[in-house]
Amino acid sequence: MMTLYGFDVSNYYNMIKLALAYKNIEYKKVVVYPNQSAEFLALSPMGKVPMLQTEQGCLCESSVILEYIDSTHPSPAIYPADPFAAAKVKELAKICELYLELPARRCYPEVFFGQHVSLETKKEVKRTLFKGMEALVRVAKFEPYLAGNEFSAADIFFLYCAEMAVIVAKKAFEIDLLALAPGGKELLSILKDMPLVQQIAEDRKLADIEFKKYIASLN
Amino acid sequence: MMTLYGFDVSNYYNMIKLALAYKNIEYKKVVVYPNQSAEFLALSPMGKVPMLQTEQGCLCESSVILEYIDSTHPSPAIYPADPFAAAKVKELAKICELYLELPARRCYPEVFFGQHVSLETKKEVKRTLFKGMEALVRVAKFEPYLAGNEFSAADIFFLYCAEMAVIVAKKAFEIDLLALAPGGKELLSILKDMPLVQQIAEDRKLADIEFKKYIASLN
Repeated sequence: MMTLYGFDVSNYYNMIKLALAYKNIEYKKVVVYPNQSAEFLALSPMGKVPMLQTEQGCLCESSVILEYIDSTHPSPAIYPADPFAAAKVKELAKICELYLELPARRCYPEVFFGQHVSLETKKEVKRTLFKGMEALVRVAKFEPYLAGNEFSAADIFFLYCAEMAVIVAKKAFEIDLLALAPGGKELLSILKDMPLVQQIAEDRKLADIEFKKYIASLN
Repeated sequence: MMTLYGFDVSNYYNMIKLALAYKNIEYKKVVVYPNQSAEFLALSPMGKVPMLQTEQGCLCESSVILEYIDSTHPSPAIYPADPFAAAKVKELAKICELYLELPARRCYPEVFFGQHVSLETKKEVKRTLFKGMEALVRVAKFEPYLAGNEFSAADIFFLYCAEMAVIVAKKAFEIDLLALAPGGKELLSILKDMPLVQQIAEDRKLADIEFKKYIASLN
């Protein structure tokens, strides 16, 4: 049986939780926060979560883990069988990750933990978030799902990755990033109404108490 | 026939060129620099290169394009057939991209174009490059290839992505990043000795003259 390492507040961890639940795959959990201990770095090369331990070894990086899970447990699929359609799902996922979540992440210290982020960083992030959302809209279908009429890994990235950019844009810059994306608000509603997603949100709320204590203990 | 958009100096463009040459796939080329024209954004959502135009539509993001090419032209493979082995290749590729090339890229204005990069940015980049190379070494095999004894897409990322981090570390910080990676120098030599890679390097040298003129014309 596979073991998923991470914690219920992590947006990337929750992507894997959703995929495993969607595919009805049983797995074990180990609660761990990102850390640079030699012990954890031996399992997760950047000390990041999520990390999926399989019988063949450990895997990191959410997109890698999602594609692996889909290869080994193909039904219900989260990547289309057609190579071009699968590539479009991967492209959408990568836009959500590289051009929305990763830049937004640079403002997390200020937005979520009351720490200082420099004006230089904030200027860069603001510009990139606009560019990223405009790029996403050029490729996204919103019919109603991100890649068309089927739920896919692209929606998992939209829910747990792109939405973080929306939250940061709102809190740091008072900008409604979803105003650039007709169909975006509706898709987020559809995804958040999924019972599996609601369960993950419940778990997140509970885990947030412990996580906040942990963060406070670091400072 | 597929059409590859980009220019011979781009490291990501050269990744696709190498994969197409390695698989002996015929294709057309359109020379284009990254740009934000409405015309190009309709093809490439971030205005980036490479962009691969297929009969079914356009694809961006090098990892997405490489996986697509491997699905539609499986032999010789650049991703293993086994799902776990394929995931390891993708994980190595992603470490090269996210934790080596992308941070290094933030210093390109200074290292390649004599422009100013802030001390804040340089501090962040330096820290990330160390962390990224240490992470790569934890997963890499160097037997002699990055993922084991077979050439794969991970080597394409190592050659055109990780090496950019090595160059930036050297020029901006006077650090030999490959000193952290036993087997790394040898692998780069093996890859650079491939006739296909030498041809791409020749093309790059020629194109660099025009590219420098183009960059100068922007300032």
